[in-house]
Amino acid sequence: MKRARRLFRARSAKEGLPPGTLVHIGEASQHAVAITRFSFSEQELREERECDLAALTPEQAGSRVTWIDVEGVHEVETIRSLGESYSLHPLVLEDIVSTVQRPKVEDYDDYLFLVARMLLPQEGRDFSVEQVSMVLGRGWLFTFQEGFRGDVFESVRERLRSGKGRIRAQGADYLAYALLDTMVDRYFTVLEQFGERLVLLEEEVSLHPHPRLLVQLNELKKEAIFLRKTIWPLREVLSFLQRDDTELINETTRIYLRDVHDHAIQAIETVETYRDLLSGMQDLYLSSIANRTNEIMRFLTVIGTIFIPLTFIVGLYGMNFKYMPELEWHWGYFGVLLLMAVIALGMVEYFRRRRWL
Amino acid sequence: MKRARRLFRARSAKEGLPPGTLVHIGEASQHAVAITRFSFSEQELREERECDLAALTPEQAGSRVTWIDVEGVHEVETIRSLGESYSLHPLVLEDIVSTVQRPKVEDYDDYLFLVARMLLPQEGRDFSVEQVSMVLGRGWLFTFQEGFRGDVFESVRERLRSGKGRIRAQGADYLAYALLDTMVDRYFTVLEQFGERLVLLEEEVSLHPHPRLLVQLNELKKEAIFLRKTIWPLREVLSFLQRDDTELINETTRIYLRDVHDHAIQAIETVETYRDLLSGMQDLYLSSIANRTNEIMRFLTVIGTIFIPLTFIVGLYGMNFKYMPELEWHWGYFGVLLLMAVIALGMVEYFRRRRWL
Amino acid sequence: MKRARRLFRARSAKEGLPPGTLVHIGEASQHAVAITRFSFSEQELREERECDLAALTPEQAGSRVTWIDVEGVHEVETIRSLGESYSLHPLVLEDIVSTVQRPKVEDYDDYLFLVARMLLPQEGRDFSVEQVSMVLGRGWLFTFQEGFRGDVFESVRERLRSGKGRIRAQGADYLAYALLDTMVDRYFTVLEQFGERLVLLEEEVSLHPHPRLLVQLNELKKEAIFLRKTIWPLREVLSFLQRDDTELINETTRIYLRDVHDHAIQAIETVETYRDLLSGMQDLYLSSIANRTNEIMRFLTVIGTIFIPLTFIVGLYGMNFKYMPELEWHWGYFGVLLLMAVIALGMVEYFRRRRWL
Amino acid sequence: MKRARRLFRARSAKEGLPPGTLVHIGEASQHAVAITRFSFSEQELREERECDLAALTPEQAGSRVTWIDVEGVHEVETIRSLGESYSLHPLVLEDIVSTVQRPKVEDYDDYLFLVARMLLPQEGRDFSVEQVSMVLGRGWLFTFQEGFRGDVFESVRERLRSGKGRIRAQGADYLAYALLDTMVDRYFTVLEQFGERLVLLEEEVSLHPHPRLLVQLNELKKEAIFLRKTIWPLREVLSFLQRDDTELINETTRIYLRDVHDHAIQAIETVETYRDLLSGMQDLYLSSIANRTNEIMRFLTVIGTIFIPLTFIVGLYGMNFKYMPELEWHWGYFGVLLLMAVIALGMVEYFRRRRWL
Amino acid sequence: MKRARRLFRARSAKEGLPPGTLVHIGEASQHAVAITRFSFSEQELREERECDLAALTPEQAGSRVTWIDVEGVHEVETIRSLGESYSLHPLVLEDIVSTVQRPKVEDYDDYLFLVARMLLPQEGRDFSVEQVSMVLGRGWLFTFQEGFRGDVFESVRERLRSGKGRIRAQGADYLAYALLDTMVDRYFTVLEQFGERLVLLEEEVSLHPHPRLLVQLNELKKEAIFLRKTIWPLREVLSFLQRDDTELINETTRIYLRDVHDHAIQAIETVETYRDLLSGMQDLYLSSIANRTNEIMRFLTVIGTIFIPLTFIVGLYGMNFKYMPELEWHWGYFGVLLLMAVIALGMVEYFRRRRWL
Repeated sequence: MKRARRLFRARSAKEGLPPGTLVHIGEASQHAVAITRFSFSEQELREERECDLAALTPEQAGSRVTWIDVEGVHEVETIRSLGESYSLHPLVLEDIVSTVQRPKVEDYDDYLFLVARMLLPQEGRDFSVEQVSMVLGRGWLFTFQEGFRGDVFESVRERLRSGKGRIRAQGADYLAYALLDTMVDRYFTVLEQFGERLVLLEEEVSLHPHPRLLVQLNELKKEAIFLRKTIWPLREVLSFLQRDDTELINETTRIYLRDVHDHAIQAIETVETYRDLLSGMQDLYLSSIANRTNEIMRFLTVIGTIFIPLTFIVGLYGMNFKYMPELEWHWGYFGVLLLMAVIALGMVEYFRRRRWL
Repeated sequence: MKRARRLFRARSAKEGLPPGTLVHIGEASQHAVAITRFSFSEQELREERECDLAALTPEQAGSRVTWIDVEGVHEVETIRSLGESYSLHPLVLEDIVSTVQRPKVEDYDDYLFLVARMLLPQEGRDFSVEQVSMVLGRGWLFTFQEGFRGDVFESVRERLRSGKGRIRAQGADYLAYALLDTMVDRYFTVLEQFGERLVLLEEEVSLHPHPRLLVQLNELKKEAIFLRKTIWPLREVLSFLQRDDTELINETTRIYLRDVHDHAIQAIETVETYRDLLSGMQDLYLSSIANRTNEIMRFLTVIGTIFIPLTFIVGLYGMNFKYMPELEWHWGYFGVLLLMAVIALGMVEYFRRRRWL
Repeated sequence: MKRARRLFRARSAKEGLPPGTLVHIGEASQHAVAITRFSFSEQELREERECDLAALTPEQAGSRVTWIDVEGVHEVETIRSLGESYSLHPLVLEDIVSTVQRPKVEDYDDYLFLVARMLLPQEGRDFSVEQVSMVLGRGWLFTFQEGFRGDVFESVRERLRSGKGRIRAQGADYLAYALLDTMVDRYFTVLEQFGERLVLLEEEVSLHPHPRLLVQLNELKKEAIFLRKTIWPLREVLSFLQRDDTELINETTRIYLRDVHDHAIQAIETVETYRDLLSGMQDLYLSSIANRTNEIMRFLTVIGTIFIPLTFIVGLYGMNFKYMPELEWHWGYFGVLLLMAVIALGMVEYFRRRRWL
Repeated sequence: MKRARRLFRARSAKEGLPPGTLVHIGEASQHAVAITRFSFSEQELREERECDLAALTPEQAGSRVTWIDVEGVHEVETIRSLGESYSLHPLVLEDIVSTVQRPKVEDYDDYLFLVARMLLPQEGRDFSVEQVSMVLGRGWLFTFQEGFRGDVFESVRERLRSGKGRIRAQGADYLAYALLDTMVDRYFTVLEQFGERLVLLEEEVSLHPHPRLLVQLNELKKEAIFLRKTIWPLREVLSFLQRDDTELINETTRIYLRDVHDHAIQAIETVETYRDLLSGMQDLYLSSIANRTNEIMRFLTVIGTIFIPLTFIVGLYGMNFKYMPELEWHWGYFGVLLLMAVIALGMVEYFRRRRWL
Repeated sequence: MKRARRLFRARSAKEGLPPGTLVHIGEASQHAVAITRFSFSEQELREERECDLAALTPEQAGSRVTWIDVEGVHEVETIRSLGESYSLHPLVLEDIVSTVQRPKVEDYDDYLFLVARMLLPQEGRDFSVEQVSMVLGRGWLFTFQEGFRGDVFESVRERLRSGKGRIRAQGADYLAYALLDTMVDRYFTVLEQFGERLVLLEEEVSLHPHPRLLVQLNELKKEAIFLRKTIWPLREVLSFLQRDDTELINETTRIYLRDVHDHAIQAIETVETYRDLLSGMQDLYLSSIANRTNEIMRFLTVIGTIFIPLTFIVGLYGMNFKYMPELEWHWGYFGVLLLMAVIALGMVEYFRRRRWL
């Protein structure tokens, strides 16, 4: 809910502004924007932090690849000047600074613009989301992270620095693939946590059904809706990258993208399975609660019913009629006690036979 | 419901009339129709109000763009003469004055006809709807609003007047895009308000479940159905504009339309999410109410059950048998009081252990 | 249900007969078949009733259009001889006399065969259905109505007779369009009535929930299923007419057909909305009924619970123990009365505080 | 359920065998396989029973058509030798003897292989199913029925023998159409029976809701699932026959196949409508039962509540206090009787006003 | 649930590693990897176990087919060296050792890579799953099984050894088909077991509804979700193999693949039917339980209600008023007994008539 609220606050702030106006939408940050530039070929790698913005112009240096990783998108001017150096379309810049995009890919002929959402598992129970935008050109790649809650790209940076594997020998498209792959892998960590909570809740539901569990179930259902909404559009993005005839992506990289696509589908299917399981759990919970209440009510009603004729009998002999022969009998009292015991035991037996007790 | 009713009243008034008959369908208005004409090029802008209808003929003046904005569609004759100047198809005029169209786009070769629905947030809790029709020709754009409840185009007019941004340098197709963009942005304001009401209702439901909330839930569900029905067809409209090979829309404008399309999809997904949340809330509410009733009934039944054997015992010693030895005992009364206290406490303890109390 | 039953009675009567066998399926009629022939050009119109069957052969007289309107399809021989004059396919004739077809369109190269279902609003609450078949050739149009419950084509006939509007200047395809348009317009009258009943029922449900309403709800749900089944296939029919490359339909008429198509979609969406509303109403009704029952039961149980300890106390002092000091006290009786009043008021207060009363 | 069980017993018997192995799957039969051969041209017809298997080779005799109808598929060797004479693919023969196929059509260039399922109405309440396989070649047609429960092809045979109608003048494809048409017509007889049972059950549900009806409802739901599963794939089969560019089916026959296709769609829509109705009936039933129980419980609780204060009062005056002034009054007893009457009537009135009684 | 848990444990272990890194994901095994190599032509067959890895290079020996069957994928190095001999893509090897893939097929030009999931029926009630990967090249086929719980390929090996049937005369594509066919056949054994459990549970549900059944129902529902998720994607795989224009699969083999495709669809439809049946059973169970509880409560309440006026009467004559004429009457006591008998019988009769008892 808070997520939905944030989305709208943000959106409505921009109403009425011309398209391409750069307005940062998202959480405000105290940190400065951190820009790191990797420039590498198969042989060597240059890594610069806090680099000069002016120097960030595209170089067409053969097979050399440039990766500019921007953490923090709240400084609109920085983003604008970066965008101008590489002559990015104003709508691209607008989408980068507005962190409420749905995952998508757009082909601007000279470059591809791609938005994805990163899921970051949290210590406690929940998870957080961050938007990652990528601009993939010929020989260069821009990545923009919100940069608040951590970063999933470190493993890729390590592979770049060590120079092991294919990564430095391939182009910018392979780098983009590697980053997407890392992000999708992280989805599974979040889904695993979610799955663990589901298992725990299911045990609770079948062992100790309690109204409070329903609120938890509802929370999980809302999170599953959110997960689905986050992961689902990525499928289209990856399917587009694989299928499309843009020259920016090599044939060899497409094979790798097919693999991420496959993982994304698996993630979506897992969320769908979770939703089915949650719906089954809700049915189970509601029936368990209803059963428990029914059991109690039935037990109490049976108990009450056993006493009804007994109470009638004691009332009967509490009447004040002048002539009631039983009252005079010497063993009358004990006879009535016996009678009542017989009635009570008979009823208990009857209810037991019908399995009501 | 009122909306549905209005729709039908309107429709059935036209039954049996030949197609192309102009009959105003919608709320009657006291205001006169207001026509404003903007004629602009990159260098300058002319704005005329209350302009002469006869003069409103298409000019093929190079890159000059004409925008005729009509507020109020209840004066059928005005619409007809406007339509004839630009030789619009009778069905187009019929649809313009009938304000119960579903969003659509139709290609008439020389111009595109486009119907959309504007959502206007209201102060209170609800929102209102108005139909907007557009006719986009080569170098000219007609817009028709119902014009009762306000206008969302003012920000676009301001951009035109100030001459800032791209808007005056582009053609009529870009102007149409800018207007659609403003309308879709306004959807998010309405969705934000709706979301706030949802959040408030959800808090109520989980804290103080009360039958009256169910009526509110049902109201929100009906509004969500209505929102979905309003926004959904716009997606097809925007998809058509982007995809189609009409020459009336430039390649550069298509990139912008892709952006609005994206926003429309996001709006639809939000409505779908709301529907899922509402359905979850309804489950939660029904279970909460059931739980609460069950708790009360169980508590009362348990209380009743504790008194059942006690009442039996006092009845027992109220019997009038001649020979009942206990009655003669000196401590009989106090012994019975003690016995009953023991029974009562034992039962309370038993029910507590089984968590029924 | 009766409708479904009629359908099957009819169908199974034909089992085992060779295709193209003409068997009238539908309600039997006492009326004779009424055949009216309109023959018109832009300048003049000839209208003949009770016309000679033999004379009904196709004339290829330039732009002259012939419309033969047949009311009543229960005289198999009449239909057969009509069909033979225009050499219609036996399957077409079979479908015409069998009034249980689903809406469809079939291209027989020389002519199009089209089945639609007409909804006729009834005075009371329900509506009735009639099958209308059309055969559209080059310059001629056949229409076959069941002809029991009225006719919706009168407005088109009037337009033909008056010669106003486009209708006489256009071909047979435009005439077919005009008739379809009239039929779809009539759908909205039926939907309006249905909507009114829905609004009334919804008010009842929220104000006075009563078991009888559920039966009404179920009736409306069945009617909505029936409406959907009737209108839905028409969409495909109209989409086919618009899209297809048959030469029997002019380009200009296609624009008009697009308009009817649009109305049909709107009618379907309205039925879908009704189904959503009905399903919401059912939820609301069930919860209201459950709430009401729970309220009553809770109230009664609370009342009962207040008396439980009081009844115990009066039982207590009804015991016949020899030594019960309280019984001897002078103010004992009044003390007990006071005690019971205190207990009763205390419980009422307690239940009020917990909002159980 | 029994049907599903039979399916699996059968299937698993074949596990591990090479494809094309002929294993009869289905009910064992005592009858011998009956083979009938029709060979006809427009002028004359030859019908042979118990014909020589060896003689059953394809004859390419001009427009002469051969139809070999096999009743019983449990004699694997007979099927194999038939298949070899016409050089049918081993998979075709395997599918013919395995009577658990889903309806399908397969194009083997020289012939079409087609599986459909025949529904046979039964006297009682249910219906039975039989598999029919067809192999359609150039000038010849094979049909294979299970042949236990009767045969729906008799009407077609009669038409062949009488030589009336088109059937002898057309090719093998028209014969195949005629047989399919007969089968689909028979579906409607089964659906009619099903509809009758639905109508009866609905009346029961609304007049005398009883738990036993729920079991019947569930039975009907299972049958509807089964009907849907049986009829649905036939739609694809007929759509394929109509659409496909195989030369085995003439243009004129396609028009007739379009007609059967249409009927199949109508049958499916009917099943869907039945499922909707059944689901509505279930809602109705559950609410009726709940209402009825609630009514009874409310009535009884109200009765009980009226007696609660009365029982308290009689208990009150049963107390044994020394000093209770009312007890001494001469009209005390009658006064209390009156008081109780007033209380009882007051409560009855109160409950009536609130419509609880 | 355990399955889902296993999946994620596995996945997250690989997070951050470069693509193509071989990490075994799945259950650890003590067994060594068993490699069997079949090399055959129509005339003869060579079968080698524990074969030399180095020798496993592709031979292009005419029509000779090589099948290398690997049981156990936990020895990463073995898989890597096998992969390198045949120059398989690193992603293929990665997927082979990671046993949590969803069924898929990928075209690597020189070979097809295919993942399927094998269902193995278990003695008890459940079933187990194993991943099978296949790499199909020109003249060679690799298969990789997890190899823990048995093997379904033995029947194919037997057919190869015996040299009967088509199998040795056909290429590697036919061998791949034969293996897929065996796997899909085994699905039906699992589905049969599942169906048996369904039938048993349904009998239980309708005869002895008990809360414990709901847990079983939920278990079956979860298994059905799992089955669906396992079988569904195989449909796409088989559809791809049939349709695609790869040269690795012969035209004749495609006909056989069409057959397996058909079986896969039948398996999916069966799972869907099971889900429908399970959902029907749940409705039935919930209603049965509710009915049973209602019956009991109603019975008890009716019994209680009969005693209410009787208890009132005995209380009435237990009052201590000085002047109560009835108390003095000689037959008063017996009269009251009679009166109460009449009231009790009257109420029993009344409740019987209204069918409440």
